[in-house]
Amino acid sequence: MNPIIECVPNFSEGRRPEILDAIVQAMTFPGVMLLDREMDASHNRAVVTIAGAPDAVAEAAFRGAQTAARLIDLNTHRGEHPRMGATDVIPFIPIRDITMGDCVALARRVGERIGRELDIPVYLYERAATRPERRDLAYVRRGEYETIRDEITANPDREPDFGPRRMGPAGAVAVGARPFLIAYNVNLDTTDVRIAKEIAKITREKGGGLPSVKALGFALHDQGVVQVSMNLTDFNVTGMFAAFQHVKTEAEKRGVHVVGSELVGLVPLEALAQIARQALKLQGFSSSQIIEVKLAEAANK
Amino acid sequence: MNPIIECVPNFSEGRRPEILDAIVQAMTFPGVMLLDREMDASHNRAVVTIAGAPDAVAEAAFRGAQTAARLIDLNTHRGEHPRMGATDVIPFIPIRDITMGDCVALARRVGERIGRELDIPVYLYERAATRPERRDLAYVRRGEYETIRDEITANPDREPDFGPRRMGPAGAVAVGARPFLIAYNVNLDTTDVRIAKEIAKITREKGGGLPSVKALGFALHDQGVVQVSMNLTDFNVTGMFAAFQHVKTEAEKRGVHVVGSELVGLVPLEALAQIARQALKLQGFSSSQIIEVKLAEAANK
Repeated sequence: MNPIIECVPNFSEGRRPEILDAIVQAMTFPGVMLLDREMDASHNRAVVTIAGAPDAVAEAAFRGAQTAARLIDLNTHRGEHPRMGATDVIPFIPIRDITMGDCVALARRVGERIGRELDIPVYLYERAATRPERRDLAYVRRGEYETIRDEITANPDREPDFGPRRMGPAGAVAVGARPFLIAYNVNLDTTDVRIAKEIAKITREKGGGLPSVKALGFALHDQGVVQVSMNLTDFNVTGMFAAFQHVKTEAEKRGVHVVGSELVGLVPLEALAQIARQALKLQGFSSSQIIEVKLAEAANK
Repeated sequence: MNPIIECVPNFSEGRRPEILDAIVQAMTFPGVMLLDREMDASHNRAVVTIAGAPDAVAEAAFRGAQTAARLIDLNTHRGEHPRMGATDVIPFIPIRDITMGDCVALARRVGERIGRELDIPVYLYERAATRPERRDLAYVRRGEYETIRDEITANPDREPDFGPRRMGPAGAVAVGARPFLIAYNVNLDTTDVRIAKEIAKITREKGGGLPSVKALGFALHDQGVVQVSMNLTDFNVTGMFAAFQHVKTEAEKRGVHVVGSELVGLVPLEALAQIARQALKLQGFSSSQIIEVKLAEAANK
């Protein structure tokens, strides 16, 4: 099959729909599919999700950054979410028939081009980082636009991977590669939010729980249940089935039960195949055993 | 998305590859994908699996029947498998974005055309049957070619749905519609085949077990395990997860454990989505949440 990547650039504009319209319009052309676009006024930030062939998605990301740099001025931007650039982050995500290494190479290529053609400082982050500490986006972005602007010229920690050692009104952009993130929630038949918070605490990686899992506990008052809300930041490390089983076991220890689970947004087919492999101990299963996949492969030949 | 159906015609030729080549060649053209072809010499029978858009698949099935009628003579055909025609059965199977009712209508249209253009008697069977007893293929085919040939003119039970009340050397064909069949096996960590046979007996529908499930128990001597081998004849009634759970529970009652399971051949995406829904109590999940499906939908627009 043809390789597919996803890209989820974040732009520092959450209030003027016409600005996001212009950015999205620059990013969408044949070969690129717009999967989602969201604006948040209090964060003053927009998240755009596109997918398609790697070269087309890379071109779309560049055009989005180009348009954002023209229309957004960080000197007048205020919002709750930390930010350092008009285009704040550009993560590339392998979906199908492409490796993380390929996405790292793509991130570096797009980063180099943004630096050179748009004259914007670029920091490589996550799997594309060139320094270990820059894997962490929060570290790269510490102090936000205003601090980086003041430090970038003299502070060696602030030296960008590409582009000039000075920031204009478009700020700087973090370009990187990371695994697909699955937003997955499990609901429990209790109104005691402490149970959800306790299970979240021992489920997340930081609490010594499951690797590559972030978790929080919430009450869903209108439904009379509580929720363990998880981000699976690398489903090849911990997938939905393992997360479900862990929460279910911990819930049962506390005398409560799973009423259901939910997947927020999209998921790669491979994450579904993984559930079948794990829940059914299914051996030797590959997604090419799925009729629709075989038909799509034949159509692409 | 565009509707997709599968069709699995069986032809009474399992020994001369050049005959099957000619049939398959007649059946494959743009819009039709050949998923599988198998010949069995002792059965003297071939099974061809194609998929694609309904009209294309219907045309392919007709052309296959036309070619088989020209090349296969039932008067000289001998084999272990019961048969009544050069093309013995033509089942149409809904895969995606098409109903069973649509497949029934398609089966009747193709059956009518085979009767009229090829002058071959056609019996509608399974979901397309016009008489309750004809849902059962074994009933339709009782006595095989030779008996039906002798009875078709005078016996009202043998009146075909379409085509002439007489059989030529191409015999008769059963045309129908049925759900997708999943071949699914669960392996147990014992060498005692009686356990597999016992679990198969209480798992299959005929033994009062799971509806729409056929099951047999085998020893896999080379692997040192036994196998409960199942046909799930309608996975919307009993799917892989329910079958797995049932066999697992019965195995554990007998002190043995599941070492793994395996899916033979192909499966519709919906069967995989069903596993996720059931194993994770996943609520509100639809296959349009799969990135690859969204991309394919966009490409087909």
